[in-house]
Amino acid sequence: MTNPPALSARLRGLDGSTDGWSVFLRARAMIAAGTKVTELTIGEHDIGTDPAILAAMDAAARGGHTGYAAVPGTDTLRTAVAARVSARTGVPTGRDNVLITPGAQAALFAAHMAALDPGDRALMIDPYYTTYPGTIAAAGGVPVAVPTRSRDGFRPDPATLAEHAAGAASLLINTPNNPTGGLYERATLEGIARVVTEHGLWLISDEVYDTQVWDGAHLSPRALPGMAGRTLVMGSMSKSHAMTGSRIGWLVGPEPVIARLTDLATATNYGVPGFIQDAAEFALAQGTGFEAEIAAPFLRRRALALDILANRPGLRLLPARAAMYLMLDIRPTGLSGLAFADRLLDERRIAVMPGEAFGTSAAGHLRIAMTVEDGGFAAALEEIAEFARSLS
Amino acid sequence: MTNPPALSARLRGLDGSTDGWSVFLRARAMIAAGTKVTELTIGEHDIGTDPAILAAMDAAARGGHTGYAAVPGTDTLRTAVAARVSARTGVPTGRDNVLITPGAQAALFAAHMAALDPGDRALMIDPYYTTYPGTIAAAGGVPVAVPTRSRDGFRPDPATLAEHAAGAASLLINTPNNPTGGLYERATLEGIARVVTEHGLWLISDEVYDTQVWDGAHLSPRALPGMAGRTLVMGSMSKSHAMTGSRIGWLVGPEPVIARLTDLATATNYGVPGFIQDAAEFALAQGTGFEAEIAAPFLRRRALALDILANRPGLRLLPARAAMYLMLDIRPTGLSGLAFADRLLDERRIAVMPGEAFGTSAAGHLRIAMTVEDGGFAAALEEIAEFARSLS
Repeated sequence: MTNPPALSARLRGLDGSTDGWSVFLRARAMIAAGTKVTELTIGEHDIGTDPAILAAMDAAARGGHTGYAAVPGTDTLRTAVAARVSARTGVPTGRDNVLITPGAQAALFAAHMAALDPGDRALMIDPYYTTYPGTIAAAGGVPVAVPTRSRDGFRPDPATLAEHAAGAASLLINTPNNPTGGLYERATLEGIARVVTEHGLWLISDEVYDTQVWDGAHLSPRALPGMAGRTLVMGSMSKSHAMTGSRIGWLVGPEPVIARLTDLATATNYGVPGFIQDAAEFALAQGTGFEAEIAAPFLRRRALALDILANRPGLRLLPARAAMYLMLDIRPTGLSGLAFADRLLDERRIAVMPGEAFGTSAAGHLRIAMTVEDGGFAAALEEIAEFARSLS
Repeated sequence: MTNPPALSARLRGLDGSTDGWSVFLRARAMIAAGTKVTELTIGEHDIGTDPAILAAMDAAARGGHTGYAAVPGTDTLRTAVAARVSARTGVPTGRDNVLITPGAQAALFAAHMAALDPGDRALMIDPYYTTYPGTIAAAGGVPVAVPTRSRDGFRPDPATLAEHAAGAASLLINTPNNPTGGLYERATLEGIARVVTEHGLWLISDEVYDTQVWDGAHLSPRALPGMAGRTLVMGSMSKSHAMTGSRIGWLVGPEPVIARLTDLATATNYGVPGFIQDAAEFALAQGTGFEAEIAAPFLRRRALALDILANRPGLRLLPARAAMYLMLDIRPTGLSGLAFADRLLDERRIAVMPGEAFGTSAAGHLRIAMTVEDGGFAAALEEIAEFARSLS
C-alpha cells in the first residue's frame, strides 16, 4: 500500500497558528477552570439576537421556507439590501449588484476569488482583522501588509500604498476599522481611490461596522467618482443587528461580477437558508432606530472610556471614532502589547487583545472590545489605567 | 481614469451556462405564466422540514445560541456525527475527524481545496451531479470526466479509471448516485480503491443519499482496508432529514486534514449557525425510524415505477437501487434526452431532466425525480410511457 496523498500546498500553507490569540486562549482556559476573568477580547455583543428577529425566522421556517433558496439570495432580500446601500451611499444599486452570502467572511473570500488569480499580490492595511491573511491565502493570493503608524491614527498613507501597489491585484480596506476604532475620512479614501485607479487594482471594502460611528460619518469608497466599477463591498447583519451567529452578509459590486460570484457560490456553499434571509429582511425593515439601539451600548461605553482614560500616565487612547473597539497605545510602559496583555491577565484577571495579534504596525498597543456591561467595563478600564500607571 | 480591472481568469472560466437546465427553466417560466406542469426535475422532497426540527431550532435560538459558534462545529454535533459515521460504517471516527459545513456543497469544495493545487487534474464519474465540474474549477482544478456506460448501470470500470488516473490528484465518486439511482457494490468500490491507491489519489466520496437505499446496502469506501487515510466523505442533513434549506452537512476525513480545513472554513464561511447545528443534533437523535419515514415516499414511488414502467416499448428503466431519482434509457425512441424532454414538456406538460445535463455518458436518457405525490407521480409515469410508445 502506498502512503496517503499529501494535502494541497495551499492548505499546508494556511496559517493555523494562534499567535496573538494566546491571551484569549489562556483567558478561556482560566474561565473554564473557574477563575473570574473580564473578557474584552472578541467583537461580539453582550446581547443575543433580538427575540423579534428570531420570531420572524421561526415564522418563515414554519411557513415553509425550508427548501433550497435561490443561490444569490431571495429577490426580496437582495432588493432590500440594494435599497439600503442606495440610501446610505447615494450609489444607484439594484438587486443584481447584490449577492447574499453566509456572512461577510464568505463575501470577503468571494471578493478575493474574483479579484485574484493564484500567485497575485493582494494588499491589506496593517493592523488588520485576523482572518485577512488567511482569506487571501485561501484564495491563492499573496498577502502584502501595508504598514501604517499609530501617530497617523493607523490611516494608510497614499505614498506608502503606492510603493506597494505596482503589480498587485487588489487592496483590502476596512472602515470603520477593526482593530483600531478608526474611521477613514474623505481625504484618505480619495487618496486610496487614486492609488488603486492608477495601478489598476480592485478595491475590496469591508464595511461591516458601518452602523457603529461615534464621530463623523461613514463614507463608502464605492461612492467616490469612478469607483463603483472597481469596488467590491462587504456588508453584514452581524454587527449592525447583533446577528453574528446567523451567518448572513452580502457582497455589493458590478453586475457581471455578481453573476460570476453566483456561480462561485453554487460551488462553494449553495446559498443561505431562506428562513435566515427572511429574518434578515425583517431586521432591516426595523429601520435605523433599531440599529441605533444595537449600537448604543458601545457609544455609551466609549463615552466612559474617554472620561476614564483621559490623561492617564502610561497609556494613550487613540481617537475612538467608530466600531466596538478601543485602541490603547501602551508604549510609554515600555512593554510590548503581548507582555502587557499577559501580565494584565495574570495580575488583574482582565483579557484584552495585544496589538501584535493584528500585524506589526500596532505593536505596543492593546485592542479593547467594549463588550461587557457598563459597570464592569468602567471598572476594567480603571484597572487597566491603574496597571499602566504602575508600570510607567 | 483607467478601465476597471478584469475579473480573475478562474472566475471568468467558471461555467455559468444553463446547458441542460433549459427544460427546467422553461418549465418554471410556464408555471410562472399560469400553466400547470408536473415537475420531476429537482432533488427536493415534496415535504418541508419537520416542525419538530424547526421547534428545536427555535428553542436553541431563543435559548441564546445566536452568537458565533465554533468554526469546525459544536462539540456535541461533531461528536454526534462521528458516532453516526462509526455506527453506519464500522470505521472508528471521532469528533476531530468531522468538520461541520454549511451544506455538503461546501464540504465538496473544501475537499477539493484540500486535495488539489491549481492546475491539478481531478477525476469525476460521468454522469455526474451538475455542480461537480464548477466545484473542481472553483478549487483551481481541471475536471476530468471518466465515462461510464448505461449497460453497466453507469458503474465505473476500473480499467477505464486507471487510464485517466495517471497524474491526477483526486477522484470524486457518488454512491448512492445522483443522477442514475445506482448504488456501487463492494466489487466496484474495491476496484476504485485499488486504482486510487496505486495512483496516489485522494478519494472524495459524496454519500449524501446514504439513507435512501432500496436494493442492497450502502457501503462507504472509507471502510475498505487502508482507505480511511485517503478518503474524504461528504454527508448532509439535506436528503436524509428533509433539511435542504438549512444548509448543513459535514466532511469526514483524517484529523490533520480536518484541522487545516478548519482554517479554510475560518477564511471561507466562519462556520454554521449554532441554532441550525442544534436542530441537526436534535434531528439525528430521532434515529433511523425518522430517516426511514423521510425516505418512505421515494421507496413507494419506486415501487410504482417498477410496476408502471415494466415492459413498455421505447424505454428502459435502469436498476433503481437508491436515491430519489429514476434513470430512463429512451434511446429506443431515437430521440436525444434533451429532444425527448423538450417535447414531453411542450406536449404533455411534464418536466424531467435530460441525461445530457449530467455529462455525456447519459445522453439519450432522462432523470426523473420522484418528488411529487404518489397519484400525480404514477399518472406522470403513465404519460411518459405512453409518450415513449408513441415515438417508438
